[in-house]
Amino acid sequence: MPLAQRAGDNSEARYCGVEVGFSDDIQNTLAFALGGQFDFIVAPLTDPEYRPSKGKEGPPPFSGSDLVLSPSQWSSHVVGKMSAWIDLDSPDALARQDAELTLKQELSWAQHLSLQACLLPTPRPLECANYSRCVNQLLQGLSNLQIWLRIPLIAPELQAVEGTVEEDTAFLKREPVSGKPLNDSWEWWNMFRSLCEYHCQLSVVLDITGSLPSPASLKRWIGEPLRAVIIHTSAFLTNKKGYPCLSKRHQNFITTLFNHNVQIIVSGESMHHVDSLDPTTASSESGANGSEDGAYPRHHLRPYLEYISHLYRHMDPLTEQERFEIGYRDFLQAPLQPLMDNLESQTYETFEKDATKYNQYQKAVYAALVDRVTDDETTVVLMVVGAGRGPLVRASLQAAEDAGCRLKVYAVEKNPNAVVTLHSLIKIEGWEDLVTVVSCDMREWNAPEKADILVSELLGSFGDNELSPECLDGAQRFLKQDGISIPSSYTSYICPITTSKLYNDVKSYNDLAHFETAYVVKLHSVSMLAPPQEVFTFEHPKFTGDKIDNGRYKKLLFQPPEDTGSALVHGFGGYFDAVLYKDVHLGTEPSTATPNMFSWFAIFFPLRRPVYIPAGSAVELHFWRCVAPSKVWYEWAVSSPDVSPIHNANGRSYWVGL
Amino acid sequence: MPLAQRAGDNSEARYCGVEVGFSDDIQNTLAFALGGQFDFIVAPLTDPEYRPSKGKEGPPPFSGSDLVLSPSQWSSHVVGKMSAWIDLDSPDALARQDAELTLKQELSWAQHLSLQACLLPTPRPLECANYSRCVNQLLQGLSNLQIWLRIPLIAPELQAVEGTVEEDTAFLKREPVSGKPLNDSWEWWNMFRSLCEYHCQLSVVLDITGSLPSPASLKRWIGEPLRAVIIHTSAFLTNKKGYPCLSKRHQNFITTLFNHNVQIIVSGESMHHVDSLDPTTASSESGANGSEDGAYPRHHLRPYLEYISHLYRHMDPLTEQERFEIGYRDFLQAPLQPLMDNLESQTYETFEKDATKYNQYQKAVYAALVDRVTDDETTVVLMVVGAGRGPLVRASLQAAEDAGCRLKVYAVEKNPNAVVTLHSLIKIEGWEDLVTVVSCDMREWNAPEKADILVSELLGSFGDNELSPECLDGAQRFLKQDGISIPSSYTSYICPITTSKLYNDVKSYNDLAHFETAYVVKLHSVSMLAPPQEVFTFEHPKFTGDKIDNGRYKKLLFQPPEDTGSALVHGFGGYFDAVLYKDVHLGTEPSTATPNMFSWFAIFFPLRRPVYIPAGSAVELHFWRCVAPSKVWYEWAVSSPDVSPIHNANGRSYWVGL
Repeated sequence: MPLAQRAGDNSEARYCGVEVGFSDDIQNTLAFALGGQFDFIVAPLTDPEYRPSKGKEGPPPFSGSDLVLSPSQWSSHVVGKMSAWIDLDSPDALARQDAELTLKQELSWAQHLSLQACLLPTPRPLECANYSRCVNQLLQGLSNLQIWLRIPLIAPELQAVEGTVEEDTAFLKREPVSGKPLNDSWEWWNMFRSLCEYHCQLSVVLDITGSLPSPASLKRWIGEPLRAVIIHTSAFLTNKKGYPCLSKRHQNFITTLFNHNVQIIVSGESMHHVDSLDPTTASSESGANGSEDGAYPRHHLRPYLEYISHLYRHMDPLTEQERFEIGYRDFLQAPLQPLMDNLESQTYETFEKDATKYNQYQKAVYAALVDRVTDDETTVVLMVVGAGRGPLVRASLQAAEDAGCRLKVYAVEKNPNAVVTLHSLIKIEGWEDLVTVVSCDMREWNAPEKADILVSELLGSFGDNELSPECLDGAQRFLKQDGISIPSSYTSYICPITTSKLYNDVKSYNDLAHFETAYVVKLHSVSMLAPPQEVFTFEHPKFTGDKIDNGRYKKLLFQPPEDTGSALVHGFGGYFDAVLYKDVHLGTEPSTATPNMFSWFAIFFPLRRPVYIPAGSAVELHFWRCVAPSKVWYEWAVSSPDVSPIHNANGRSYWVGL
Repeated sequence: MPLAQRAGDNSEARYCGVEVGFSDDIQNTLAFALGGQFDFIVAPLTDPEYRPSKGKEGPPPFSGSDLVLSPSQWSSHVVGKMSAWIDLDSPDALARQDAELTLKQELSWAQHLSLQACLLPTPRPLECANYSRCVNQLLQGLSNLQIWLRIPLIAPELQAVEGTVEEDTAFLKREPVSGKPLNDSWEWWNMFRSLCEYHCQLSVVLDITGSLPSPASLKRWIGEPLRAVIIHTSAFLTNKKGYPCLSKRHQNFITTLFNHNVQIIVSGESMHHVDSLDPTTASSESGANGSEDGAYPRHHLRPYLEYISHLYRHMDPLTEQERFEIGYRDFLQAPLQPLMDNLESQTYETFEKDATKYNQYQKAVYAALVDRVTDDETTVVLMVVGAGRGPLVRASLQAAEDAGCRLKVYAVEKNPNAVVTLHSLIKIEGWEDLVTVVSCDMREWNAPEKADILVSELLGSFGDNELSPECLDGAQRFLKQDGISIPSSYTSYICPITTSKLYNDVKSYNDLAHFETAYVVKLHSVSMLAPPQEVFTFEHPKFTGDKIDNGRYKKLLFQPPEDTGSALVHGFGGYFDAVLYKDVHLGTEPSTATPNMFSWFAIFFPLRRPVYIPAGSAVELHFWRCVAPSKVWYEWAVSSPDVSPIHNANGRSYWVGL
């Protein structure tokens, strides 16, 4: 049964599994685990003694016929564990043959049983080409089966300090050809999945024991296709009452995993012999499951499950913003083309609900009015360019009321559909004397007078990407020389990210154009490899006399924290920050992001091929904003540590029309 | 006029150019150069003083209107030299703007003039992203114009020793982000063209001065799209008579360039003031060119041209084999599928002409007969499996005659069309009593008796790739237990290669399948980065009792010579060597290749993305031969220094049918 119910969260992380040994009575094994409140078992499908080369005739010694469980039991409650002895990169050719034959038999059997996933044994450190080749061949023909590759979170050498067997670490004395560190298990995973070309049905499952790697190193895994972790009973500490518990760092990591849809699997011998339950815990679980005190004895790993369940129940509840965003997490959306297309009513509806954003605008207009108005006689001329259905008109009028000054508002809007709503709003609110509606593109409008203040909300997820610079350059014709633009400036930010999910989603389109397009995304299962840095800044107004050049070129160098280890960059996450007026800003750049604002997700610039960043190396990125008479586009390229081709040459794949 | 005529060779390398300074009278400049026997000029198109930001109104100061030369003069005799001051990676934004505008103007003008090529100035060392971006944009829209990027063969620092200006080398003090060595100019080229994604219209032109880099480093350039070299007058030495000449190493390099279709361009001031011509040289050039002693004075660079011409004339003549192969150089061919398809008459015709090959077979059969026959009474049973139109039958009968022994030949052939020719051959030659023709697939034939010797020629360019192993395993049923197979074994060889031409030819198909296919190619403009190594060996006969497993896996490590520097691997060149009998072998592996044999070109296994090999790094390659009931195929992957995806999983793109 699920660990708990959490409002607004229906992720798979609610289900907890247990790793079990081989038994030829899997029916009984499963019933015992379910009786102990686990949701699924990770069970070997074949007798571990079996070797094809030593075998007699007849079928392999499987854990029971397909009939011992119902089809839905097989698929909902069993993850197939491939034989742990399988070693496809053994120097011994016979061992390799046995391994290949067995792996193929077991995977074929798992597909026959309609299992959802199979757990594959850990590859040799950085020596996995033949294993990868075999799995890669099998991946080409799989229907729905997920392949989970088992990787220790900490490589054996580091654990050896804590007392593992010496033979286990013999391989670490080998000098790898690649120059890559053998003791970073992320490298094992990276080589394996790179050989398999990032196949979307290949995921990683981590073994967690008593120690955790450095925080930056741990963070890398969040951007990987991490489906589950196997937490060993040896990872648990003992609390005052004798119950198992986890270190604070382990707790935080498990909570992070819950938040990223990663399942927990408990494994190992019981190391805490708790006879009677804590009364508070006991009360919360009576009733629901009938088999608990029935045919089976109490499950020896139950106290560990209870602790995991406790962590799940004590997570922070989802905020309103999180509940809104949860359905959009790591989901690619094409950016808007607000200049070429007219927004739909539903889009206005969504964005107008963002109270935080309009509060910031109201504060900015208020501050500008206070600076601007020196006597009671002045009527300030304020133009809202891109007025939409009126939210900035409302915020501006409210600011004027607060400041106690007279305002004359022009609401300029190019979308004739929104203009209908604007007229109706003015009538309803009785603003006929205050507001003039202008149905016109701001770049073409002949204003009857000049404005003191120009208010606009033309920013995209990357600041200038919806062509705010070009629009406001056009509109400043009717701003007084000492007039104010709100926003007065905005800056885009960018950083390299690991995001296996988004990379595979882009790749699934199977064309070049999608790899050269920017996407609006609620980035979630993503690892930022370095803090975002400034890219382009635009200021308004800009009275220079010359034609304003909005083309830009920026070279950026990102240095991941030293303890990160190596990592893979799938692309870049983009954000913005806008100065509305003086100290009133709004934006999405993570370190200064405006709280409770949901109008903007991040933007994602993919790379056509992920770039491997060796430990200690920096990422050099080149970013261009290119401008032609009828369109604006970005180009981007990585020049270090690897050189990528320049993406989106001439805006061939992605551009924004003027 | 061409340097000389060379029988069988019509390459562009016959034409020699001269680099000239800016002049607003290009007509005169060209006439002077042609009068001096040069074939083309490399001339600036714009006044070097011109800067758009300082300019007045009006067109840029070009070297003359398009009317001053005829269209065919522009396109045949002028390479446009883009302004040398262009610096698109300057820290100064205005300088970048001027550079971009000028480059676009000049390239546009060059296209208007229908020039064949433009020479672009040298990029900053490993700091060329903005320059690449601009060129990459222009490349997308070019029709036929070739872009030649100028790169010094030796980076300035190394030359500084010989006395260049110190400012030139200031950049070398900068620490590059990439960790790549700034003083290897190949790296400059590699970064530039990688950013431009190996565009097929982007080539390299090298500046050659007095010193040359190490031989291995020099060799890299042969696999690059090297169109021309600019040899500076400072590179020349002076011979006893006061004439310019080149060092032995320079001579060899120039000859290599001639052999690889690379043009020579002479540049610089005259440093050898030779007043009167050597009488022998003078005699060879009188007559042909009328303008020589006409309106123009003798060209000051004429002695250099004469020396280049001298080198061209003194090259070794093409051998018969070279003349045969020249049309096939670096040209992709699909490998044969001899089991699934029947060969055509023309194919038999070509291969039967390879006297060397059949001589080797005859020697092998002779040696086997000598070993086998101990008395005069024995009749040796010899079966030719895959007899085709009979060349091996002829070679075997000749060997028997030489050995003075009695032979009974079965000629087994599955192609019914070839069988017609076989019957006719036997009649013509009067072999009716000696040879029995069997029209049958050797894998299915029920032989009436067992053979002493089994002779076959089923080898492909990669040895086993035309399924010789599977055929001979099938045929050994009718070989005596102590019988002999000719060939008795064969081994494939492979090595990493730089081959820009082949990579771009594969890429031009624009699909995955062509990147996962092996091609038969006469490798020529190719640089081998390390010596070939053994891959798979097959021995015949193989009487094991068990089913013979012809699947194979090999891991290979290639270490380029230390003085190579970095390089790019576009794929792998494959060869084979076969032991026919004891010490009689034949093969294509370069170090032991059978001379004057033309039946086999090499085989080329491409990589989907070229792999960059940093200086000092080794290349780790994994190679598989996979066997399924109806087909055989290869898979391959690089695991170091970079990890490639596994190519051709399950033979999805390329396989040989059984």
